[in-house]
Amino acid sequence: MSLIVHKYGGTSMGSVERIKNVARRVAKWHAAGHQVVVVPSAMSGETNRLLGLAREISESADGRELDMIAATGEQASSGLLAIALQAAGLQARSYAGWQVPVRTDSAYTKARITAIDDKRIRADLDAGRVVVVTGFQGVDDEGHITTLGRGGSDTSAVAVAAALKADECLIYTDVDGVYTTDPRVEPDARRLSVISFEEMLEMASLGSKVLQIRSVEFAGKYRVPTRVLSSLTDPDIPLDEEMRSGTLITFEEDEKMEAAVVSGIAFSRDEAKVTLLGVPDKPGVAYAILGKVADANIDVDMIVQNQSVAGTTDFSFTVHRNEFARTLALLTSQVAPAVGASSVVSDDKVAKVSIVGIGMRSHAGVASLMFKTLAAENINIQMISTSEIKTSVLIEDKYMELAVRALHKAFGLETAAPTKI
Amino acid sequence: MSLIVHKYGGTSMGSVERIKNVARRVAKWHAAGHQVVVVPSAMSGETNRLLGLAREISESADGRELDMIAATGEQASSGLLAIALQAAGLQARSYAGWQVPVRTDSAYTKARITAIDDKRIRADLDAGRVVVVTGFQGVDDEGHITTLGRGGSDTSAVAVAAALKADECLIYTDVDGVYTTDPRVEPDARRLSVISFEEMLEMASLGSKVLQIRSVEFAGKYRVPTRVLSSLTDPDIPLDEEMRSGTLITFEEDEKMEAAVVSGIAFSRDEAKVTLLGVPDKPGVAYAILGKVADANIDVDMIVQNQSVAGTTDFSFTVHRNEFARTLALLTSQVAPAVGASSVVSDDKVAKVSIVGIGMRSHAGVASLMFKTLAAENINIQMISTSEIKTSVLIEDKYMELAVRALHKAFGLETAAPTKI
Repeated sequence: MSLIVHKYGGTSMGSVERIKNVARRVAKWHAAGHQVVVVPSAMSGETNRLLGLAREISESADGRELDMIAATGEQASSGLLAIALQAAGLQARSYAGWQVPVRTDSAYTKARITAIDDKRIRADLDAGRVVVVTGFQGVDDEGHITTLGRGGSDTSAVAVAAALKADECLIYTDVDGVYTTDPRVEPDARRLSVISFEEMLEMASLGSKVLQIRSVEFAGKYRVPTRVLSSLTDPDIPLDEEMRSGTLITFEEDEKMEAAVVSGIAFSRDEAKVTLLGVPDKPGVAYAILGKVADANIDVDMIVQNQSVAGTTDFSFTVHRNEFARTLALLTSQVAPAVGASSVVSDDKVAKVSIVGIGMRSHAGVASLMFKTLAAENINIQMISTSEIKTSVLIEDKYMELAVRALHKAFGLETAAPTKI
Repeated sequence: MSLIVHKYGGTSMGSVERIKNVARRVAKWHAAGHQVVVVPSAMSGETNRLLGLAREISESADGRELDMIAATGEQASSGLLAIALQAAGLQARSYAGWQVPVRTDSAYTKARITAIDDKRIRADLDAGRVVVVTGFQGVDDEGHITTLGRGGSDTSAVAVAAALKADECLIYTDVDGVYTTDPRVEPDARRLSVISFEEMLEMASLGSKVLQIRSVEFAGKYRVPTRVLSSLTDPDIPLDEEMRSGTLITFEEDEKMEAAVVSGIAFSRDEAKVTLLGVPDKPGVAYAILGKVADANIDVDMIVQNQSVAGTTDFSFTVHRNEFARTLALLTSQVAPAVGASSVVSDDKVAKVSIVGIGMRSHAGVASLMFKTLAAENINIQMISTSEIKTSVLIEDKYMELAVRALHKAFGLETAAPTKI
């Protein structure tokens, strides 16, 4: 007997029929002798509907009240799933976040889980019940309801799995796993049967939408074996087949994983670049620039400072495209005069393309194959940023799909066999 | 400075515009120096939508899970109202039932309030906040969410007012008070400016839909001055005008109230009548019949046992029309054979019409004027039931409106002057 946590996204919970299918799938696992905890999202569209009403009333709504409102979508779907499980012949009980309780800090609309009490869940599991834990929400130390931000149900599920020391956390979603890149861009993209935690973390932070990044962090911190798999298969497919499907996030670097130099290609069009030209090069200049940007609550992604020439340097960084206008206004009105920059140039027609692979740690030449491939396609690289297991480049955004496809081919990702470099 | 509790029904909370109007009305009270607690219902249609989804999944859904689902409608509208109050320049905070907490028993879908902790509300009021308390819901001793049944937000509001010893509980609704009878049946129906608690209790139990009966019981038990008034007026009408509008439920029998013999006419078409004919008349026969009906969880309303003739009697009672088929099956298959009745006759084309008035206590002849009026219209009375302050008759349902109009005129209810008898 294993203890398994299932998480179902909004699409999987999107209608009465789909909720019944979720119940059938859970019943199959229960019938095979497993203890099951289920974490459902709100029915698709519900969170947007609720927050849309709040926005109609006020554009600057209080976070505490937004969480009161948003938390109801998941609570309703949890009750509906419990009823569907009972109709499928199981004993089931649903709990709102505060009932477990799932404790969080008080950062409304983007709270972080601090602790999960497993007593109530365990007592129900031991009594033979399936337990439905409402995702996306918790309760702070003062008893106020909090939510975890978009995609937070992934984090709820992994955190519950960690608290219960579950054998596996299954994230059921509308894709059947993690791919080498987005199949809509590269039709030869291949599903990975395993991916290392570190690679998944990079993929998530670089724009892959499969898992919320904080859920991956949680999985890593507590070493929760986590599998991304499809909720759109027949709920009655054989259990052993389902147990091997999808993509498993692992924490051991086995031989198979060593063999792959690059596991996937991530990309994001949410980028904008700003450059301060002719900045006098003296100690403290980076802080003088980025300190002001941080004070304005703008997240900076890639940062490049060029070699000083004749005592001045050019300083570039990227921000989310939504923050582009605000960043540019801040730089021209305050930062550039303060640091004595000669001018500000900017570009929001850029995209970031990244190769990710744990094998890059021990393989030289990976980055240079990337640069060679892009050069062969006549794609100019504007910025480069590297970490131990990924290399990202900023390019003109119209070349993004071309770059992804060329790199996918160059690193041989369409087959499971490793690429020689 | 007074402490006032406002309650707004689903229609009053039915759209973003209406929620903003509620906020404007509350802001007016707050600006006049009053402390205000607001108890909103779910947006109209929301509870039906949620329970409809549950019913689509299972017709025999678990009460605990139904309450998990249904409670979300009020929680969302409470958060929306808090945001609207903040947008109107007030400090406001909303609480779900469990956060107050509003404690109830564990009778899911029809729980009863057992206690309300006023500490959290009072602290917020003292800090200058408007407090929004989610209606219709509470939490039981094991920390499970409960709901109070349809119309339960009325009860929540009156109970909160009782716990806080509020100066007045204002029930804002889509009618502008309590009428002598339903104006859709009798256009000359007149709004009562005051009604005694006992009369309101009878009106509510006899089919007047203005207030949930349990809220009236609560108001009486804790002597909460409660006013029913319209939420459809301009939210900016002068406060003193609003304070005199609607119908006030009072606990003192002042002269004005003594003067009116009959205050109102209630009616209900939700009736069905069953009669056991030729029941051997011996001690215990009423229990032998009604005990089995009670065991089947069927509520009985009017009960009539006729004078015994030749050792047998006829035994009639009424039930809610929804329970008619079940009652009839029970009587014919089990009860009639058990008590030796000769046959069972039944009729679900009946209606109950009641006159209600605290003056009936001290005035003879009220019932006989009722019977005379109905006789003059050729309306046959099938059953009669009386209490200290009401007389109800069961009649063929096609005569119901005619009976209401004739009685309204006979008792002079279209004018505030008392009728001589």
